[in-house]
Amino acid sequence: MNVLADRFAFVLFKPKAPGNIGAAARALKNMGWNDLRLVATERLNKRAADTMAVHARDVLDNAQIFPDLKSAVEDCGLVIGTTCRPGPYRRIAKPIRAAAPELVALSSTNRVAIIFGPEDFGLTNRELKLCDRLLTIPAAPDYLSLNLAQAVMVVAYELMMAAGAPIDTDRASDLPALAPAAEVDAMLARMTDALVAIGFLPGDNPDHIMFAVRAMLGRSGVTPRECDILNGIARQIRWFATGGRETIDSKRRAGRKIR
Amino acid sequence: MNVLADRFAFVLFKPKAPGNIGAAARALKNMGWNDLRLVATERLNKRAADTMAVHARDVLDNAQIFPDLKSAVEDCGLVIGTTCRPGPYRRIAKPIRAAAPELVALSSTNRVAIIFGPEDFGLTNRELKLCDRLLTIPAAPDYLSLNLAQAVMVVAYELMMAAGAPIDTDRASDLPALAPAAEVDAMLARMTDALVAIGFLPGDNPDHIMFAVRAMLGRSGVTPRECDILNGIARQIRWFATGGRETIDSKRRAGRKIR
Repeated sequence: MNVLADRFAFVLFKPKAPGNIGAAARALKNMGWNDLRLVATERLNKRAADTMAVHARDVLDNAQIFPDLKSAVEDCGLVIGTTCRPGPYRRIAKPIRAAAPELVALSSTNRVAIIFGPEDFGLTNRELKLCDRLLTIPAAPDYLSLNLAQAVMVVAYELMMAAGAPIDTDRASDLPALAPAAEVDAMLARMTDALVAIGFLPGDNPDHIMFAVRAMLGRSGVTPRECDILNGIARQIRWFATGGRETIDSKRRAGRKIR
Repeated sequence: MNVLADRFAFVLFKPKAPGNIGAAARALKNMGWNDLRLVATERLNKRAADTMAVHARDVLDNAQIFPDLKSAVEDCGLVIGTTCRPGPYRRIAKPIRAAAPELVALSSTNRVAIIFGPEDFGLTNRELKLCDRLLTIPAAPDYLSLNLAQAVMVVAYELMMAAGAPIDTDRASDLPALAPAAEVDAMLARMTDALVAIGFLPGDNPDHIMFAVRAMLGRSGVTPRECDILNGIARQIRWFATGGRETIDSKRRAGRKIR
């Protein structure tokens, strides 16, 4: 039970559409899981399932098939049913986001089965009675019932997020490092000079409009490269404004190359 | 813009499979959204789409169809591209969970477009250049690419979850109303022309550097007044670059006073 990917078993109970089974396999692989189980499914149209699984055919091919729900979950320490409908046994259904951290914690010592009902009616009370807990996916009151594979995706996604999203540093998500304030100030002064030189800003009171520019850049933050670009623009404007406009000396312009 | 359901436009760019379009419509309705837009889609197999939409046919029937991406987002103040692939322009893609609260806050004053690329290759750099910001759905490194409708579901779900969280109304009211995407695009085109005219940008490939400018402005968002200022700067640069010959433009420049 050390491999995170094996800690959850995703159990589809009587799924009907092979496309949904394939799409569920893909959703699992997308979110880093691989244990798909099918219960009492009709003869699988492998081709239709493969089409939706795309590059998750390994998950699909390795899916175990069981005749009934009990045998499908017998190696699991915790059995969770999913439901979107209100009902006598369903009031205690916990939203997946609230449930996920505890399920991930429990999964370190117990394989956890998550059961999804058939497309048309979901799990009935008969199956829900086999479940230790229930979870639900929040949805708009107008249309509570998710497509089977979509439900699998949301649960798989929430469990992955709770388990700690795979961090790929190449795809770093935070804001890039920003240019030091002094460099941004110097750039803004250079830009102000340039815009005064071409008559866009009044020389006696350039700050009124530049304050707005600064506020805009302040909201975004300016990276060193962006600062380079803006400096380059200011220099080039200034160069033009001071009479260099007959020919464009690209070598001179390229005094500081921006990539 | 008061109705929460209308604050986000979900834009499918060149979707191929009608089943995915239907499943996306269902995902939107499940999560309380209703603005689906299709760009340059092939003739829609209505029956296949309806099959997957199930009880979300109203969302599907009301989907607007556009010939190109620009027209699809022109009423949106903020345009967000989705991507799963790393790449030079994609490093700034923010995970949807981190991005959602701010997008929901911004959506109170600006309609936000979320663009999803075609099933096979996703959005290319060409489309990403039209985007103010990028977002990504965390996934397992083994298989980063989600099914189109699954990607729509995860984004729709995260936005619904963020919208349901207590909203800091003090902060929301501080958020500026942003200029429509079409006006920002026009301003950037004007600025590009101006910077080519003074030799700052190479005429044959101005986009490389302008993409960085766009990303910077996308992080901050551009208000109508800021858009006016940047337009004014572009016009004045252009006027200088052409030796003050473009008198019509200079009259127009003088006719639009920036305060």
